[in-house]
Amino acid sequence: MSYCLATYRCFGEQTDFHKKAQGIAVGLTVGSWTDLPEAKKANMQKHLGQVVSVEIQEASASSPRYADIQIAYPDVNFSLDIPALLVTVFGKLSMDGQIKLIDLHFSERFLSAFSGPKYGIAGIRSQLGVHDRPLLMSIFKSVIGHDMQELASQFKQQALGGVDLIKDDEILFENPLTPIEKRVAACMQAAAEAEAETGQKLLYAVNLTGPTFQLKEQAKKAIDHGANALLFNVLAYGFDTLQALASDPEITIPVAAHPAMAGAMYPSPNYGIGASVLLGKLMRLAGADLVLFPSPYGSVVMPKEENLAIQQVLLTEELAKHYGYQTPQLSANKLKRSLPVPSAGIHPGLTPLILRDFGQDVVVNAGGGIHGHPMGTAAGGRAFRQAIDAVQQGHGLKEYAAQHPELQAAIDAWGLREN
Amino acid sequence: MSYCLATYRCFGEQTDFHKKAQGIAVGLTVGSWTDLPEAKKANMQKHLGQVVSVEIQEASASSPRYADIQIAYPDVNFSLDIPALLVTVFGKLSMDGQIKLIDLHFSERFLSAFSGPKYGIAGIRSQLGVHDRPLLMSIFKSVIGHDMQELASQFKQQALGGVDLIKDDEILFENPLTPIEKRVAACMQAAAEAEAETGQKLLYAVNLTGPTFQLKEQAKKAIDHGANALLFNVLAYGFDTLQALASDPEITIPVAAHPAMAGAMYPSPNYGIGASVLLGKLMRLAGADLVLFPSPYGSVVMPKEENLAIQQVLLTEELAKHYGYQTPQLSANKLKRSLPVPSAGIHPGLTPLILRDFGQDVVVNAGGGIHGHPMGTAAGGRAFRQAIDAVQQGHGLKEYAAQHPELQAAIDAWGLREN
Ligand SMILES: [Mg+2]
Ligand SMILES: [Mg+2]
Repeated sequence: MSYCLATYRCFGEQTDFHKKAQGIAVGLTVGSWTDLPEAKKANMQKHLGQVVSVEIQEASASSPRYADIQIAYPDVNFSLDIPALLVTVFGKLSMDGQIKLIDLHFSERFLSAFSGPKYGIAGIRSQLGVHDRPLLMSIFKSVIGHDMQELASQFKQQALGGVDLIKDDEILFENPLTPIEKRVAACMQAAAEAEAETGQKLLYAVNLTGPTFQLKEQAKKAIDHGANALLFNVLAYGFDTLQALASDPEITIPVAAHPAMAGAMYPSPNYGIGASVLLGKLMRLAGADLVLFPSPYGSVVMPKEENLAIQQVLLTEELAKHYGYQTPQLSANKLKRSLPVPSAGIHPGLTPLILRDFGQDVVVNAGGGIHGHPMGTAAGGRAFRQAIDAVQQGHGLKEYAAQHPELQAAIDAWGLREN
Repeated sequence: MSYCLATYRCFGEQTDFHKKAQGIAVGLTVGSWTDLPEAKKANMQKHLGQVVSVEIQEASASSPRYADIQIAYPDVNFSLDIPALLVTVFGKLSMDGQIKLIDLHFSERFLSAFSGPKYGIAGIRSQLGVHDRPLLMSIFKSVIGHDMQELASQFKQQALGGVDLIKDDEILFENPLTPIEKRVAACMQAAAEAEAETGQKLLYAVNLTGPTFQLKEQAKKAIDHGANALLFNVLAYGFDTLQALASDPEITIPVAAHPAMAGAMYPSPNYGIGASVLLGKLMRLAGADLVLFPSPYGSVVMPKEENLAIQQVLLTEELAKHYGYQTPQLSANKLKRSLPVPSAGIHPGLTPLILRDFGQDVVVNAGGGIHGHPMGTAAGGRAFRQAIDAVQQGHGLKEYAAQHPELQAAIDAWGLREN
């Protein structure tokens, strides 16, 4: 028998949490147990959920009474896909009082159906030829209502600044001015022109949108026109669709997962799905090569512990510990690693914090912090590259900025936080 | 110009809600406005979001300070699909502090892309030949680990009780014992046998599961084997997938939407998406013929106001008022009506309340309240039909039960609530 493990945080002043846990383990698997005939129990044992642990926290000044409950679900009960797992462990249960799904661990059998990121960190680094520093991504400033020439020129300015990746805005959909095939062609042309000047390779994550059942064709059309990466609003379509895209052998480019709509599920302490599950484990399992999420530094904020929990599950090679349940043999190579992209409100003066917290395997991602640079967009990219260089070389940003006018101008504009 | 309208409830003790609203209207459309050259503004005006209203509620004993903010988004900015709309109006914004999406209204142009339920209430009633009373649905008792013969015999007992619909458990996935094609064949055979005794037609909503890109084939396989309805875990796959299924001309049977996972999004007052949007408007728009949701009567509860808000948007023919934004000409026939199915913890003694609150266009839905009947499953169905008859004929349940032993036994077992 093999099991997937769900961990819930469950609130209740008076709740008998042990009884609640038993109710979940039985109710979401075999339905009833104590009233089954003994002969039947023998057959049904392999389908019965198990209460693994119940840890009660009595009410305190900072939190009402709750319990963390772990239930192991026999994987023979569901098909080996994310919708089946989520409907089993958090379908009806999501509506049953104050309860949040805070962690998932998977059986080896369940994991066998997943191939994870097609490229992962190593693949992306090798495509870019950058192995020894954090990556830099920039976001278009504004895109809606702009024509192809304007987008291409925005793109080229970003590329000239030395960024490694450029992503579409997640709210840029198919439109007559800049449909995906034209966007890809024009932007890849701009990338080639910039590369001739900078020598720098670049991935452009073009936004994959439209009806679910046309996404594969849309992705292939983008690839035919030269696309070398995709952006995808995973939560608007479901994790299974990401998995289908990421595991399609004809979709030969990395996928960056955008967290749009995630805030409908992770921020409440009492309901929903924890950020490290929603934007961490399930994204990596389903095959995101890069995962964007709100940083703790900028405008749209997520607590730092949650950021670091996402980072850990995207990067860990201890898969048996962090992903597996009773899978001591699970290979560390089972899932490639996904690149964390803490986003929103980032400017060059935050680079020391980002690199301190995330180390080298991170994408520093900025929009306004590049386009809003006093010396222009290309200078905005250069200021970030300078900030990254400074931290990598162990210089203080202030000191380094004295020799690097773009970085100096960024610090003058937005300030500096070194801790 | 035509717009879709999003209504948010936004919390903040100190927040300048007017400024926040402006920030949303600009930030989620053209990106920036005040720093645009005048010539550019003329071009961009048609893409600019509009603040429609900001209603501030100061803090009270029952609630912290909040504002209801309405923003109109030009529909030219996004493609005519639910993922594009949701990513636009609640993508990044979902992660920006305490904010809940509480309503949506649609432009005529946006609505033009949706055909809604293929059958709707009238279609389902005519398939069943039942026009003058609430419908009765029953749910399998336990399904996991049971073989085909056990399921078929459970099915037949339910059918003999006179129910109109039987639904799979939402956690029954493809498995070697009862794969969809065998399940459909055996259950439809049992339905035919029961019909020969009862004269009653029956819809069996078989659970459509598995990989997204195989769902259409799976649905067609079920239809080939005689399926006459589908159950679908919409939120595990996304609304767009429901729409694709419901609008596929080869999927010629009604779809019942299950609310699994909805509790990750609707219950928090501060985050997520309101129940009447998630389990109401978007379900009807995407084409659910029936929509299940937690009732306010039973074990998994939703407040009654939220139930009635869902009911209203599933049933209303005043589409211009409830669905449209600036669409005075919107036809009342644009979207067929979806049948509300308040579920969980229902027993015959609750029938008077359900019919009082929901009227005739409702599905009374029970699992334990049928299978747990002291005289058995078939008697459980009959007790519900008797309860419905009593209410329809204006009898008190107690009085009617004196002549109807199944109803009497149900009341003895579970009690009675008439108000
Ligand atoms: Mg954006
Ligand atoms: Mg169920």
